[in-house]
Amino acid sequence: MRACRREPTPYTPVWLMRQAGRYMREYREVRARTSFLELCKTPDLAAEVTVTAAERLKVDAAIIFADILLIIEPMGLDLEFAKGEGPVIHNPVRAAADVERLREVETIESLEYVMQAIRATRRALKPDLPLIGFSGAPFTLASYIVEGGASKNYVHTKRLMYEDAGAWHGMMSLISRALAKYLNAQIAAGAQAVQIFDSWVGCLSPDDYREYVLPHTRAVIEQVTPGTPVIHFGTGTAALLELLREAGGDVIGFDWRVRLDEAWARVGDDVAAMGNFDPVRLFADVEHVRAEAKKILAQAAGRPGHIFNLGHGILPETPVENVIALVEAVHEYSQR
Amino acid sequence: MRACRREPTPYTPVWLMRQAGRYMREYREVRARTSFLELCKTPDLAAEVTVTAAERLKVDAAIIFADILLIIEPMGLDLEFAKGEGPVIHNPVRAAADVERLREVETIESLEYVMQAIRATRRALKPDLPLIGFSGAPFTLASYIVEGGASKNYVHTKRLMYEDAGAWHGMMSLISRALAKYLNAQIAAGAQAVQIFDSWVGCLSPDDYREYVLPHTRAVIEQVTPGTPVIHFGTGTAALLELLREAGGDVIGFDWRVRLDEAWARVGDDVAAMGNFDPVRLFADVEHVRAEAKKILAQAAGRPGHIFNLGHGILPETPVENVIALVEAVHEYSQR
Repeated sequence: MRACRREPTPYTPVWLMRQAGRYMREYREVRARTSFLELCKTPDLAAEVTVTAAERLKVDAAIIFADILLIIEPMGLDLEFAKGEGPVIHNPVRAAADVERLREVETIESLEYVMQAIRATRRALKPDLPLIGFSGAPFTLASYIVEGGASKNYVHTKRLMYEDAGAWHGMMSLISRALAKYLNAQIAAGAQAVQIFDSWVGCLSPDDYREYVLPHTRAVIEQVTPGTPVIHFGTGTAALLELLREAGGDVIGFDWRVRLDEAWARVGDDVAAMGNFDPVRLFADVEHVRAEAKKILAQAAGRPGHIFNLGHGILPETPVENVIALVEAVHEYSQR
Repeated sequence: MRACRREPTPYTPVWLMRQAGRYMREYREVRARTSFLELCKTPDLAAEVTVTAAERLKVDAAIIFADILLIIEPMGLDLEFAKGEGPVIHNPVRAAADVERLREVETIESLEYVMQAIRATRRALKPDLPLIGFSGAPFTLASYIVEGGASKNYVHTKRLMYEDAGAWHGMMSLISRALAKYLNAQIAAGAQAVQIFDSWVGCLSPDDYREYVLPHTRAVIEQVTPGTPVIHFGTGTAALLELLREAGGDVIGFDWRVRLDEAWARVGDDVAAMGNFDPVRLFADVEHVRAEAKKILAQAAGRPGHIFNLGHGILPETPVENVIALVEAVHEYSQR
């Protein structure tokens, strides 16, 4: 929490995106009994995997176990996690008429299970360990809603954007209103910071980002309950960093494709920085993991406001001992 | 050719990556009779699709129909294009021992079919239309060789790189030596410029690019027959542009994730610039295509040395009439 506010800390805090995930035996055991979406919707189990991961790794924050897409269900989208295929939306939005039938999310009651999971986690977690809430950012949500799942080229998304700007902005506004309510409900339930994941925004040109995305992301961030830090994260954002900053956030999250020192200089020293260890490095030997952690810490140079993290989520086959070694290395090398 | 040398031209020249491809009926008719690899290996057919595409689109250059991976076959790699799955390498390199069994490419005799296709194309093409030869760049070739095909996270590639730098550099050197011979053979056969495609290099951090890739790409470019322009292209390179420039090339090719004016300023005004229309825009209406072409031309501001192109290859489902409209718009809007 102090790092989010750019206050000095005794060492650099670290947590890892997707720290509760398939790479961890304890998580796989829970998943053997439960589907992914069931796990998200069962507060006690979601709390259990959240707390177990944070304690096992000895990280400095927990992030609630959930999915970036949960908010699209109350909009009337039929979301399924097909085995081994990732998310599938059975009624994707392709045209203005589809946007018309999206439901305005008046209350987030149908997502109450997330708030219950946050409350259960907050009760089970050590009092000094912050809990982060999250969701997908407007563009990344829109890309799933339009494509009907993951995408390589975002053809449907961009076609809608380019051919029917009115429909596009209508959809993005609806998503943004829902998102602000959802994040604030998570905060009311006990999330002490919130992160928005604009995981796929890197497919856009800077001009498109400015025109079609920035106003909506900014609207969400501006509506977040004052006093709660917002972490604004994206991947493939090397040409978008200044614009992400302009959209807002107390902390900007970088992927590994940019140097942390250069990226931080570009977004300015009035924001905190999160990142940016390549998750693929966790497949190399422990010596490599430790050496690279040291390099990133050297780029941050002990400056207040650095939250160590990966540049994207932990991959399923990652050796858990390397993840633990990374957390240890960050704590060890950053002692002031 | 004049644009490659940054000399003034009466209008901005344009050609399009993968201009001979599945989006075009004439190409699909040839492919109905022939597999992809057979087509590459049948000089008369390769020449036919090369010439047909260039004439149909009225572009200002032809690029020989071939694949970026052909050079890996004489290294002893078992390459197949599985239907609908893209390239598969049945004996991928995963460790130092696998690098040891790669064959040094002493002569490019086994790739003589490419040179025959170049000669046949040169004979059939209008004399004033330049013909471009090409190959994958060392890193992109290495990523296919190690992964055994396309990849999402490049886990095997990076693991080899990080865990066994000796084996990595040995493999990259072997690839680079083969590549220089191959590009020069294409030039001897009649290619007037050559392009290296570092399509997947954007998965690397700048520091990794500098250490593991730059020396090898530079070695290739330095060995290209003097006087022949080299086009150095990559995608996802927003954080790597200065390093790509350092590795070399007379023309640097950009994807759409960067603004052309900013990217060109970063690589310097002593190189030409190629790009950078998002191929997905070709799915929108013709008005959009024309307007966006105009915007890119405005960024180049009529400066000599701009070659208009896409930011990556034409996608299979692209409407051919939009591709033709793009070429027309570039010619129309750039008349001096």
